[in-house]
Amino acid sequence: MTLIKPRTLSGFRDYLPAAMIPRERLMQTAREVFRSFGFAPIDTPTLEYLEILTGKGSDETDRQIYRFEDNGGREVAMRFDLTVPLARFAAQHISTLGTPFKRYHIAPVWRGERPQAGRYREFVQCDFDTIGTTNVMADIETVAVINRLLETIGLDRFTICINNRAVLSELLRHLQLQDKSVELLRCLDKLAKIGRDQVAAEMCQVAAISEDQANQVLQLAELDGPANEIFERLPEITGGGDEALAAIQRLRDVYDGALASGVPNRRIKIDVSIARGLDYYTGMIFETTLNDLPSIGSICSGGRYDNLAGLYTKQHLPGIGASLGLDRLLAAMEQLEMLPKITTPAVAFVAYFDEAHRSDYLRLAANLRSGGIATEVYPDPKKLGLQLKYADAHGFRFALIAGESEWQAGKVQVKTLATKESIDVDYSHEDPGALIAILTQ
Amino acid sequence: MTLIKPRTLSGFRDYLPAAMIPRERLMQTAREVFRSFGFAPIDTPTLEYLEILTGKGSDETDRQIYRFEDNGGREVAMRFDLTVPLARFAAQHISTLGTPFKRYHIAPVWRGERPQAGRYREFVQCDFDTIGTTNVMADIETVAVINRLLETIGLDRFTICINNRAVLSELLRHLQLQDKSVELLRCLDKLAKIGRDQVAAEMCQVAAISEDQANQVLQLAELDGPANEIFERLPEITGGGDEALAAIQRLRDVYDGALASGVPNRRIKIDVSIARGLDYYTGMIFETTLNDLPSIGSICSGGRYDNLAGLYTKQHLPGIGASLGLDRLLAAMEQLEMLPKITTPAVAFVAYFDEAHRSDYLRLAANLRSGGIATEVYPDPKKLGLQLKYADAHGFRFALIAGESEWQAGKVQVKTLATKESIDVDYSHEDPGALIAILTQ
Repeated sequence: MTLIKPRTLSGFRDYLPAAMIPRERLMQTAREVFRSFGFAPIDTPTLEYLEILTGKGSDETDRQIYRFEDNGGREVAMRFDLTVPLARFAAQHISTLGTPFKRYHIAPVWRGERPQAGRYREFVQCDFDTIGTTNVMADIETVAVINRLLETIGLDRFTICINNRAVLSELLRHLQLQDKSVELLRCLDKLAKIGRDQVAAEMCQVAAISEDQANQVLQLAELDGPANEIFERLPEITGGGDEALAAIQRLRDVYDGALASGVPNRRIKIDVSIARGLDYYTGMIFETTLNDLPSIGSICSGGRYDNLAGLYTKQHLPGIGASLGLDRLLAAMEQLEMLPKITTPAVAFVAYFDEAHRSDYLRLAANLRSGGIATEVYPDPKKLGLQLKYADAHGFRFALIAGESEWQAGKVQVKTLATKESIDVDYSHEDPGALIAILTQ
Repeated sequence: MTLIKPRTLSGFRDYLPAAMIPRERLMQTAREVFRSFGFAPIDTPTLEYLEILTGKGSDETDRQIYRFEDNGGREVAMRFDLTVPLARFAAQHISTLGTPFKRYHIAPVWRGERPQAGRYREFVQCDFDTIGTTNVMADIETVAVINRLLETIGLDRFTICINNRAVLSELLRHLQLQDKSVELLRCLDKLAKIGRDQVAAEMCQVAAISEDQANQVLQLAELDGPANEIFERLPEITGGGDEALAAIQRLRDVYDGALASGVPNRRIKIDVSIARGLDYYTGMIFETTLNDLPSIGSICSGGRYDNLAGLYTKQHLPGIGASLGLDRLLAAMEQLEMLPKITTPAVAFVAYFDEAHRSDYLRLAANLRSGGIATEVYPDPKKLGLQLKYADAHGFRFALIAGESEWQAGKVQVKTLATKESIDVDYSHEDPGALIAILTQ
């Protein structure tokens, strides 16, 4: 028989245990943090009507989407993000769900783009959103969730950059440039990359504004320093109209609220330069960078939008949310050497070499599991050396060794694999407490 | 603008929080139990080369598969189970992974079959397998995992039916019917459904065997009673050849090993009638039924196979595994009223009605979360009655109420929503201990 060559499609990948263990832990942490704020899980179908998914799509999205005709002749497509499905979901179910509706959704999405280094055609998105309220409390909470999420993952040195897009909009209105905001925001987004002069030149060219106007916009975008100084200077720079002042107050309320929620001051930065390309953000926007790896870009971004589901319903559904960049974060944690190099989720390894005592090994393992210790028993009675090599290679913390003499003496030998140190510990099936205590130290 | 009607494809469904909360909890329990035995998570792509997925497929599978040509002109398909991807994965990576290789995989699969009541075109499979060992220890462990899984989920009254297909094969060899095993196994699988006489008639017809032969096969399949009695009678019924005795001994070892692993006797049943239709099981097979809902069929099934990945590699990879029927189990738990009727994962609800104390509400919630209590703050300062209605409808356990007078007095009112009872509890941001203690009681 001819063999079929085992392989994956370009842009897709297998996750072996070494990669999947930290990935799964991260998703689990995200779930727990979202839940701790009262966000509830939802799921939506992988396949949707093409029309539903591309309703608002740009040409760019259309080209990237995986679409086909199903057996029933329907034009269907695989979801390319979790935002469009959320919009459809909210339009369809909001009368059942009620508002405010707080959901998280962790699920894969697919884009047929040309695969590049670190970019895949299948990747997991990890979104949370609060729908149906415009209150600043939801804005504050978004910052608090981002902070607790990264903190719980084990990160400490990160910066949540916050901005209110309305501040810039008010300045543009003051300068009578409100019609050019989309172009100007796109230019501003490049500030960190191409620098002030280039951005100024581009603004003048793309949006046909004067050098003086460009300078006023850039004066705002380049505001830097402690939050209080920025809040002091903003009224003057934006022209100080009522709506500008309200926008500034909102930004200040989010900042103060985040502090009250326990976000350390050092982790929040008012950054009036961030605009985020997407046109649909209208209020607060967030980006989060790692202080020790700024080059990888934002690992958690989001913002406030005016109306989520306008394509599907007349009901006005404002909301706010953010998305954790799971793959980017994992890549960063690998660079920061924060990922354990293990290929087993278990802690204890039980060597199995005396078949006459099969039941004893089984009972030992069952007792340890009942004591909360994840335990693997080697299935074949092979040479001890080979079994210990297996245990070492997979990253178990402890190997438990018991042969005829240990079983007779009511002992188990506990070997700490990292140090190679061994001790004998009292053990009987009826009283496994001493052993459990050693293994959970 | 014309609205697009929000809807899902036939055979697909949204999971609202009420359905997704228990679903996610079940998946999380499965992960934890698998890990506690040293099974490691993996993931594989949703899309694979069509050739990879259909290599071994029957016509039935081919008709059901979602397949299409991608933008690069490749024939691709969405996975329809997790076993074929595991086979491809193992063939591709086993030299990196080594054996024994223990993995679990919890992921959606797709089949374009005609949707029926309770059957969907997208559903989650939840598989665990041990590859690269033929030792009975892996067979025993499979039973132990099934038991701990269902026990941890909260089930008590279930029965794990175990059988060794080799026992039946040896009888068929003894009767010189080994060439007809596939047909006979298919007939036997219907025993519970259509009864002895019908099965006997079908056997004679389909496999062209004598009535006497059919009776001998059925005598084995109908063996019932306590395990020890069955083990006593099996040698005689199967002809008592060496290989028959070895097959019986294996079944006995699995039974004894499961008991040693802590599986209660009342939950294991030797059932020599179960054969499981799939041809590729060769040794031990398992089915699990709920004693109070036998009609829903097996909720966790599996068995031992000789060679997993023969389509993709010459390396012989024997294994054993089982699959939890997540959707069937959830449906059963709903019938048994084991699912909580909640739409929030949080425990405590903080009413928010005094905007002047915004920071106090935020600090209160942050303190509770740090104390391990999932806490939601209502985002809008609406009327208290409306907020409490929201809390009630979502199934929070506690509502926390504090207005000006409570904040002044250093108190928070704690309302238990099920009983409507309220008590005042001392609280300050610096010392939230008393409140946390009340909420975690």
